[in-house]
Amino acid sequence: MKHQQRVDFSKVSIDGGFWKAKQDMVAGTSLMAVYARFAETGRFEALKLNGVEGQPDTPHIFWDSDTAKWIESAAYVLQKRPNPELERLVDSLVDDMVESQMPDGYFQSHFQTVEPENRWTRRQDHELYCAGHLMEAAVAYYEATGKDAFLKMVCRMADHIERVFVREGSAKFHSPGHEEIELALVRLYHCTGERRYLELAEYFVNVRGTAKDHDSSYAWCNPRYYQAHLPVREQTTAEGHAVRAVYLYNAMARLALETGDERLCSAAKKIFNNIADRRMYITGGIGSSSVGEAFTVDYHLPNLTAYAESCAALGLALFAQQMAQIDEDARYADVAERAMYNGFLSSISLDGKAFFYENPLEIDPMLHHKDVSVDENKERFPIMQRKEVFECSCCPPNITRFIASIGNFLYTHERGMVYVHQYMESSARFETEAGPVSLVQRTAYPYDGAVAIDVQGVRELALRIPGWCGEWSAMVDGNAVQPQCRRGYALLALDGGSHTVELTLAMPVCLVAANPKVQQDAGRVAVMRGPLVYCLEGVDNGAYLRDIRVDRAADWSIGWENGLGVQALSCTGWRRRLDPAAPLYAPLQDDLEPASLKWIPYFAFANRGETEMIVWVQVR
Amino acid sequence: MKHQQRVDFSKVSIDGGFWKAKQDMVAGTSLMAVYARFAETGRFEALKLNGVEGQPDTPHIFWDSDTAKWIESAAYVLQKRPNPELERLVDSLVDDMVESQMPDGYFQSHFQTVEPENRWTRRQDHELYCAGHLMEAAVAYYEATGKDAFLKMVCRMADHIERVFVREGSAKFHSPGHEEIELALVRLYHCTGERRYLELAEYFVNVRGTAKDHDSSYAWCNPRYYQAHLPVREQTTAEGHAVRAVYLYNAMARLALETGDERLCSAAKKIFNNIADRRMYITGGIGSSSVGEAFTVDYHLPNLTAYAESCAALGLALFAQQMAQIDEDARYADVAERAMYNGFLSSISLDGKAFFYENPLEIDPMLHHKDVSVDENKERFPIMQRKEVFECSCCPPNITRFIASIGNFLYTHERGMVYVHQYMESSARFETEAGPVSLVQRTAYPYDGAVAIDVQGVRELALRIPGWCGEWSAMVDGNAVQPQCRRGYALLALDGGSHTVELTLAMPVCLVAANPKVQQDAGRVAVMRGPLVYCLEGVDNGAYLRDIRVDRAADWSIGWENGLGVQALSCTGWRRRLDPAAPLYAPLQDDLEPASLKWIPYFAFANRGETEMIVWVQVR
Ligand SMILES: [Zn+2]
Ligand SMILES: [Zn+2]
Repeated sequence: MKHQQRVDFSKVSIDGGFWKAKQDMVAGTSLMAVYARFAETGRFEALKLNGVEGQPDTPHIFWDSDTAKWIESAAYVLQKRPNPELERLVDSLVDDMVESQMPDGYFQSHFQTVEPENRWTRRQDHELYCAGHLMEAAVAYYEATGKDAFLKMVCRMADHIERVFVREGSAKFHSPGHEEIELALVRLYHCTGERRYLELAEYFVNVRGTAKDHDSSYAWCNPRYYQAHLPVREQTTAEGHAVRAVYLYNAMARLALETGDERLCSAAKKIFNNIADRRMYITGGIGSSSVGEAFTVDYHLPNLTAYAESCAALGLALFAQQMAQIDEDARYADVAERAMYNGFLSSISLDGKAFFYENPLEIDPMLHHKDVSVDENKERFPIMQRKEVFECSCCPPNITRFIASIGNFLYTHERGMVYVHQYMESSARFETEAGPVSLVQRTAYPYDGAVAIDVQGVRELALRIPGWCGEWSAMVDGNAVQPQCRRGYALLALDGGSHTVELTLAMPVCLVAANPKVQQDAGRVAVMRGPLVYCLEGVDNGAYLRDIRVDRAADWSIGWENGLGVQALSCTGWRRRLDPAAPLYAPLQDDLEPASLKWIPYFAFANRGETEMIVWVQVR
Repeated sequence: MKHQQRVDFSKVSIDGGFWKAKQDMVAGTSLMAVYARFAETGRFEALKLNGVEGQPDTPHIFWDSDTAKWIESAAYVLQKRPNPELERLVDSLVDDMVESQMPDGYFQSHFQTVEPENRWTRRQDHELYCAGHLMEAAVAYYEATGKDAFLKMVCRMADHIERVFVREGSAKFHSPGHEEIELALVRLYHCTGERRYLELAEYFVNVRGTAKDHDSSYAWCNPRYYQAHLPVREQTTAEGHAVRAVYLYNAMARLALETGDERLCSAAKKIFNNIADRRMYITGGIGSSSVGEAFTVDYHLPNLTAYAESCAALGLALFAQQMAQIDEDARYADVAERAMYNGFLSSISLDGKAFFYENPLEIDPMLHHKDVSVDENKERFPIMQRKEVFECSCCPPNITRFIASIGNFLYTHERGMVYVHQYMESSARFETEAGPVSLVQRTAYPYDGAVAIDVQGVRELALRIPGWCGEWSAMVDGNAVQPQCRRGYALLALDGGSHTVELTLAMPVCLVAANPKVQQDAGRVAVMRGPLVYCLEGVDNGAYLRDIRVDRAADWSIGWENGLGVQALSCTGWRRRLDPAAPLYAPLQDDLEPASLKWIPYFAFANRGETEMIVWVQVR
């Protein structure tokens, strides 16, 4: 087991390029757009323990988690961009929460407002989940501003939770119905130095799925849904609600790092492999079924009905990055990258105002608009256009906090070896065991595979060679080098001085086939260039996209799509003549005609109105 | 509009070949198998107006229709094969019903037993539907045996219904929630000569979808579900619950024939075209969605989740045959044939004991057995093995009555022109306007395209050239003739004497493509030979059938599959190497390897245990 140190995004400045634009969008648009929606719906008022007039069940059980993720997002933005007005907004929310916290440390707006007598009685009701998000937000806000009121408040909560769940055992269940607090407690431990919080995280992870845990009742679901079907060290496959699942797996990997628990590490590895080898869309989306928002069975990856929740994709990226710290293997960063640029990034509109909860790999508007025969029992397809607000609004503030802290994904280090996992325009300075280092990346990634890195103080550098990359070269100070590769990382020995390392990753258009066991994709390919998955949209390519064929030997051209601000690909392909008089069934004919195809990055789909979309296209 | 006369199956003897075996199976096995299941479940006891102990809601609202269809099946068997024991069973059921009938003519075991106060108050509760099936059964039993107790009973029912719905208007609704009685009343009219019954049928058809009809409430469905969204003459597309729909359309066509109503004929034609051109599986299955067991939108024909209820397929065949009487066009018999040999015939096991309700075009056992995350909210796929009994058991007795009366599909005639719609080993004698005729068919159809017909008394013969047939020839008494074709029928002028007409329909294996608008079938073909659709099963072809490719220029061989008693096809195709170490996604490779493929007729699928199955296969 490895013990790589993470490099916090606070040490990394995304100062240009692709992700700088996304961070600007979050800071300039998304953050306040989400704030406005949450204010409108009463989420912030709820912290004062007033319900919403006319809505008897408010505050909803998960509202505090939305607020927490928004504060966490704000904290990450504040970390990089001082903004007194934004800080005031957060302070006001914190004041309300501190005010509302009970003397015993409990805080949960739903239970305090609606049913105080039912605290800690229903596993499915998100109390620990909300507490976890509040802890993460408080740590983030403390780290961004040095203000500790919120941090102290969540420490009192954590103390209360420890008392109720461990010391007194008075709660009616033993581990959360929705994981989140496990990881949050580790962060709280690191921020405060209070080892009890780490131990409480371990308690929640260790009790899950044990005989003791089974006593609890979770009304409408089976234990697989919330990963309590087995003790965590015996779990080998990704099961149940995908967001719950990856939050748990992430915590398992994190605890393995903290405690050196090899069995936990090994279980996390098996589960990761199950996801990456059998249960993940090419976009990095996971949880293929809307039924339970869940993992299903190996290789079952339907495209039209793909659930692939935004939170699950970003959770997978976080889990993968955590795995990279305990197991040296570039495939973790590969998976993080896959999710980051595709199934996660698709969740936010190009203008930053609207969000997807689900991220399908194919859209057929005809099916969405069908006039169903039986009311209220419509066949279910994901929505086709992003929305500004959802009743269940887990995704938007999760998306903003993820983008604002994307710098977390770039580096780790161990005994002076600096790992470069992701390539983005950025500059970073941090301490390693071998002293301070600085790395400045200059690149047009993900649209270009050339990355120049000015390094200082680095003695050993491990550069990820992405799994998608078949051909690459490296130079140091203009001289070609032939570094050895180990588990996907090219290893460069440097002298600790100032050098420029240039990595060139060939980035041709690549037709990617799925394993033959993925039945939905048989006979079809996805188009990728670098880390980006591309798709066809009806607005560019007409109707009936499933009938289009791409040529395995096509000539491709690349160009900016100005309206979208993305790079598009063009090639010629084929489609059958669409004869209006064609019968429903007829003897097979040779009726293919050439067609010009335009592909846009998957993350940019659904930004031009309702239209067909497809990722997996027939190949000829 | 044409006015062709139908030739009742009582005039046609299926005395050998493919369908004789099926009729033997129904008479020898299926009929009594269904009887036993119905007896076990209390359906027959219910006629005495006793519920089933411990089942408060019994008799169920549709049980009488099951019983009726079983009696109708028995009557058709008795028509051809005297069987005193079977007749006694029917008589006993009839006695019970006559005994239970109320003085005012009402009979319905559910309402009389469970909630007599609610008679004729709830449109959705199948009272008129059950009444219709009882009428059809009574007519059939009278025609088979001459016994009229049942017939008289249903006439009293019909009189009662006319009183309640038309003369008094005391029913709480105006037309049935599930069509069936319309067609039954026309049969009752023909059997009794009572024109009032025809008029009552017209009433129910004409009131449907009018403003008056909308007053009624049908609790959980929208009017499209039961075809009441528009007056029937304004309907142009097939909508809603597919069985309800085709029963109505059949009645519309029948009434057009009876009354010469051109608008009704024209509406029926438009709807038929909508089905045949846009909403029908290649098997003749219809109603692609389990949601409402309903038609959805044009070209939406998913294979794995195809509902394609058995009753809908046979109902489509009946509708098509009815259309053939009012519109000279071989495509009606083509569609009847398509359903008859494929999407209908698949509904009964090869041993005659078990039945499918749904007839999917693809099966993936992995998906059926998946361990879902959320209880009681599993994703829905059709069952994979036929069952002996269903809670809702509309299909089994419908299947038996259809097979027992298959002779109805062979002939019609108009002004001495005899139309041969279907080819099967058989002999027939009937009157035409030009005198008595006899036709004896000798053929191994559907496995062989050679049909010899010994005709006597026929002056004009119209032989259907099936839509699937690209090449054919005809001889009269050994001499080649070149008949003209009109709307799919080859027309032969004969002299009324005894002749042997030989028709040879070339029957090569044919790869059939779906219209490009059928997205599920893009890049795929179905294999047909003659009227039979073929499929691949996992038991013959291994796993991951969706990845198999068939060659457009493959060599085919034909042979008997002894275990199944069907003709199978063999060819070579390709599939990708199934490398156990293959990653989930990888650059497209040229890794096809040859594979021997064995195809069985679609109707024979799922007779060898749970296994994968596929109709639409990739083509190379
Ligand atoms: Zn979410
Ligand atoms: Zn049925």
